[in-house]
Amino acid sequence: MDKKKTTIVLFSGDYDKVMAAYIIANGAAAYDHEVTIFHTFWGLNALRKDESIQVKKSFMEKMFGKMMPRGPEKMGLSKMNMAGMGPKMIKDIMKKHNTMPVKDLIEMAKEQDIKLVACQMTVDLLGFKPDEIIDGVEYAGVAAYLADAEDGNVNLFI
Amino acid sequence: MDKKKTTIVLFSGDYDKVMAAYIIANGAAAYDHEVTIFHTFWGLNALRKDESIQVKKSFMEKMFGKMMPRGPEKMGLSKMNMAGMGPKMIKDIMKKHNTMPVKDLIEMAKEQDIKLVACQMTVDLLGFKPDEIIDGVEYAGVAAYLADAEDGNVNLFI
Amino acid sequence: MDKKKTTIVLFSGDYDKVMAAYIIANGAAAYDHEVTIFHTFWGLNALRKDESIQVKKSFMEKMFGKMMPRGPEKMGLSKMNMAGMGPKMIKDIMKKHNTMPVKDLIEMAKEQDIKLVACQMTVDLLGFKPDEIIDGVEYAGVAAYLADAEDGNVNLFI
Repeated sequence: MDKKKTTIVLFSGDYDKVMAAYIIANGAAAYDHEVTIFHTFWGLNALRKDESIQVKKSFMEKMFGKMMPRGPEKMGLSKMNMAGMGPKMIKDIMKKHNTMPVKDLIEMAKEQDIKLVACQMTVDLLGFKPDEIIDGVEYAGVAAYLADAEDGNVNLFI
Repeated sequence: MDKKKTTIVLFSGDYDKVMAAYIIANGAAAYDHEVTIFHTFWGLNALRKDESIQVKKSFMEKMFGKMMPRGPEKMGLSKMNMAGMGPKMIKDIMKKHNTMPVKDLIEMAKEQDIKLVACQMTVDLLGFKPDEIIDGVEYAGVAAYLADAEDGNVNLFI
Repeated sequence: MDKKKTTIVLFSGDYDKVMAAYIIANGAAAYDHEVTIFHTFWGLNALRKDESIQVKKSFMEKMFGKMMPRGPEKMGLSKMNMAGMGPKMIKDIMKKHNTMPVKDLIEMAKEQDIKLVACQMTVDLLGFKPDEIIDGVEYAGVAAYLADAEDGNVNLFI
């Protein structure tokens, strides 16, 4: 029998939403689904390395690069962000409950062979260079997304 | 023949999005779908009782409890909230058009046997106690969600 | 064999999310899916004509009409809106990469026979008149949405 499939479009760059996406994805992989996360727009920031990488960029690309968070742990919350106090509160309480931070959830996703895809159009628009993106990521467009999603059991836009 | 299935992850705690989730859910139940709403993160606030309940809590849990809305009718809008004027405008106009407020949509959902699930991880993180949550709610995790969703016809993340 | 089906609930009125919805929809139509976009709440603004139309309205309907954007090109972003600078930056960079603005994506959707539906309940609540809405749009409710979605391969809430 074919494996079940879960395909997530991760559009959001909010810490809480990225966390939800990766918890569902890791859960689905644990239940033997074939899982793909397609990172587009702000969701692409989840795949950024957390250090500053020297690459040649246009002025606008530099602006976007500076304004957007480098990796999930620098993201804000979708609600109650409170100038950064919200993420700190959530992370403190996650630590107390032994809940994994998002960067560990992403590591786990890779270990479970979840396919991490970066939307090529967004990469081009926002001017990301391959060196700025974590390893093990594929680059693809909407056609590849649809090929995965059209046979999917669980399709979500987050 | 098996019943069709609709499964909604309700992540958002905005009045308008919670309303959309419950309108789709009630519609699906009316069309004889088996319906589950899995309330996680801010969406959990839809299941809070609207009065203040005396329970023993840690300092952080008290903070979260105070900052978040008690039940759907105290929520803001995702857009045009305008310091609370937005929800009032929407509710006034809903009343004029005889549209149900969200708390009645939740009651209707229960009468239609829609399964209301509270995400156990979020309950633990935010420190909700069972006494603060409305009756008739089940507690479960991502595994239970996936078991429902993987055979679902309509799966949405709201 | 039956055609594959993609059904999108477009709830959001943010330029970036509307763009994502229409890119997925146009992609799915190009891959021969039967595609429906069901515009509800703020998503309805994507279907507004961009000029001011003289229609008879109540005070509240006038208020909503004035506060909400007339068509996609007047929308803000879900993130980094920065008082309107965000959309300008994104549009500048889209032009440089020859990416279509949303209003052209909507035109393309019509040419590809994507079914554009306006949620009748939202139309009534927010007081839109047919003259304010672009041509070629159907009006329907949650029942029609579910009829499309329950046999759908890709169902998304955006």
